[in-house]
Amino acid sequence: MIKGAGIFRTQLPKGFMAGGIHCGVRQYRPDLGALISEAPCVATGVFTKNSCKAAPVQFCEQILPSTQVRAVITNSGEANAATGQQGIEDNDQMAACFAAALGCQPEQVLTASTGVIGVPLSIDKIMQGIPLLVNNMTHLAEKFAVAILTTDLVPKTVYKKIQLSHGEVCITGICKGSGMIHPNMATMLGYLMSDVEMSVEDSQQMLKAVCDDSFNMISVDGETSTNDCVLMLSNGLSGVSLVSAADKACFYEALLEVAITLAKSIVRDGEGASKFIQATVDGAGSVLQAKRLAKSLVTSVLIKTALYGESPNWGRILARIGMEGVSASLLKTCEIALQGMTLYAQGKPITSFDKETLMKQLKKDTVEINVLLSKEGYSATAWGCDLTEKYVQINAEYVT
Amino acid sequence: MIKGAGIFRTQLPKGFMAGGIHCGVRQYRPDLGALISEAPCVATGVFTKNSCKAAPVQFCEQILPSTQVRAVITNSGEANAATGQQGIEDNDQMAACFAAALGCQPEQVLTASTGVIGVPLSIDKIMQGIPLLVNNMTHLAEKFAVAILTTDLVPKTVYKKIQLSHGEVCITGICKGSGMIHPNMATMLGYLMSDVEMSVEDSQQMLKAVCDDSFNMISVDGETSTNDCVLMLSNGLSGVSLVSAADKACFYEALLEVAITLAKSIVRDGEGASKFIQATVDGAGSVLQAKRLAKSLVTSVLIKTALYGESPNWGRILARIGMEGVSASLLKTCEIALQGMTLYAQGKPITSFDKETLMKQLKKDTVEINVLLSKEGYSATAWGCDLTEKYVQINAEYVT
Repeated sequence: MIKGAGIFRTQLPKGFMAGGIHCGVRQYRPDLGALISEAPCVATGVFTKNSCKAAPVQFCEQILPSTQVRAVITNSGEANAATGQQGIEDNDQMAACFAAALGCQPEQVLTASTGVIGVPLSIDKIMQGIPLLVNNMTHLAEKFAVAILTTDLVPKTVYKKIQLSHGEVCITGICKGSGMIHPNMATMLGYLMSDVEMSVEDSQQMLKAVCDDSFNMISVDGETSTNDCVLMLSNGLSGVSLVSAADKACFYEALLEVAITLAKSIVRDGEGASKFIQATVDGAGSVLQAKRLAKSLVTSVLIKTALYGESPNWGRILARIGMEGVSASLLKTCEIALQGMTLYAQGKPITSFDKETLMKQLKKDTVEINVLLSKEGYSATAWGCDLTEKYVQINAEYVT
Repeated sequence: MIKGAGIFRTQLPKGFMAGGIHCGVRQYRPDLGALISEAPCVATGVFTKNSCKAAPVQFCEQILPSTQVRAVITNSGEANAATGQQGIEDNDQMAACFAAALGCQPEQVLTASTGVIGVPLSIDKIMQGIPLLVNNMTHLAEKFAVAILTTDLVPKTVYKKIQLSHGEVCITGICKGSGMIHPNMATMLGYLMSDVEMSVEDSQQMLKAVCDDSFNMISVDGETSTNDCVLMLSNGLSGVSLVSAADKACFYEALLEVAITLAKSIVRDGEGASKFIQATVDGAGSVLQAKRLAKSLVTSVLIKTALYGESPNWGRILARIGMEGVSASLLKTCEIALQGMTLYAQGKPITSFDKETLMKQLKKDTVEINVLLSKEGYSATAWGCDLTEKYVQINAEYVT
């Protein structure tokens, strides 16, 4: 975990409540959480592109988009993935029991699970826990944020108020990481709640676009999980709707800021991470190329280990963008900088920089990589973390 | 390093000599090697797909294919990659000086370099070392094999005799790893020498096909180097040529066996490796799909860390093939086995296996993963190694 991750006492938008308890799926830690809205929500989701989809992902994909969602239930410890027909039935039972406790229909609740793949869901423990859970809802995000964690070290929540033309609305975002993080759509569990009044179409468009520039631009280990999803719930209880293009743009910017903050908090808390890495590529031929290159820099294990070792190894950065197919002529004119200091330009190493200053800069918690491919073109930024012995230990020891 | 890697006192085909010395590019270890043939060779090469190509790679690509190659010179310690125009000139000088010492033309020699990227080549030390090198050639492969190593722990050589219709020929293969190994063409330095008499066309076709099924099926860390190349030299001094389709098939099989043995020896000696992993995918829709899936299994850091931890985590295997886009219906009918024991079939975990036996099997140096996608279809095997704390340490500490 890197300093700065985790925020406490996070409020929820109007009409939302959150809670989390220990029901026994895991031995000691909280393992069951819920988000509940007083009023039905416009709800949309983006889901893992992994074709091995967990039962709760399949369930949510069937229901969404919807204008009638009331709540979300999530357990940690067991992913309910690769659990066959039994997993589907367990998930249905979890939804039905939760809906009954709330007094709504099963198709008005969403489910999510995270944890070990291939283990049958402890559905009896979850069903026994649901009454306790729904009787212990609060107006803060923390208990839920803690209950959904797996190898994460800190809960991840963000709250933001936005002034629109006809009044104020709020967004609360909650997510968890921290391994199997390399989004191909949305990687991890993410929840975005708002009291804004918005259409299903706006919700879908905004969620997709926001995820592409936030959660889809992070990587911990190049693995796409079976359970990834980001859900967005808007209950309209602020009474404020998106009446103009300016309102939409304003809300979108705020939503993007919340999502990027959450995405960064996932990699800051990446398994075994000691440093946060931000890689920016400018002057690319297209947005897609810029994104692919930026993401490849935070995925490369050689770059990640070099930065862990606080080594200014720009050669590995150049080799990586070469591996991604950047043309030989561009490689000769591009510039590579670490912590704002240019180390490679015009096809050869820069030797005039102050080595002592650079070494001091590389000791920081945050490392910035900048690649300038050409003077004009498209840009993208990706976020990741270094690769340490601790990552290996966590994943060699993780319960099967 | 895993037991079993490295073979000593390896012979060379008729008319070849090999040598290696210390010239001072590196502080203590041998760093300059040469292969020399009495007679001109049919020579072909396959080269890295990384567009950041080292100077020696650019040099060899210009020369090959050729029927006049007499020798190869290789230094370790400095890769002569990302060194600009100076790197090109240094490489030309290295070739010219070596050719002069042999009494041949510069375009009759090939060059290769391996080591740190972005550091100017110590050309003066290399030129001073060349006379010593050419005066200390031997009839064995070892001194050369040692001089080209970087983070490798053992030299990698293979010798094989083949009986053809008109007589016997020999193949000697030499290569080095052991980081930045994820071939997209050929990854690493590889040398295949033979005294067979063959055409340039046969040499090119066979080399390409052999590399695709050997060096291109291994991965240590998912990184494609700037210096990768595999060179094949055939001097014809056995007086035996490939006269029939049967001879060609026989020679091809032997060449493939040599290349696969070398490829396996690279991952056995992968940076920090404690286990050798062999992943086989059967019943795929195409050879390409089978190869892509098999290779993804030995690339996945989650699978690699699980096997390091001797954990039978088949869930990570299923998640990975799902991430690679295998259809949800195939994921329900596929079978996953570790060490020959089936752990997942018909969409759910198998629970009837003997856990104690499996745990004992997973303690072995070699781990076999088998994925059966369907009863009929295409197969491929890939080779890799586990990911350990040691890999992180090696790459965090590696000299810049």
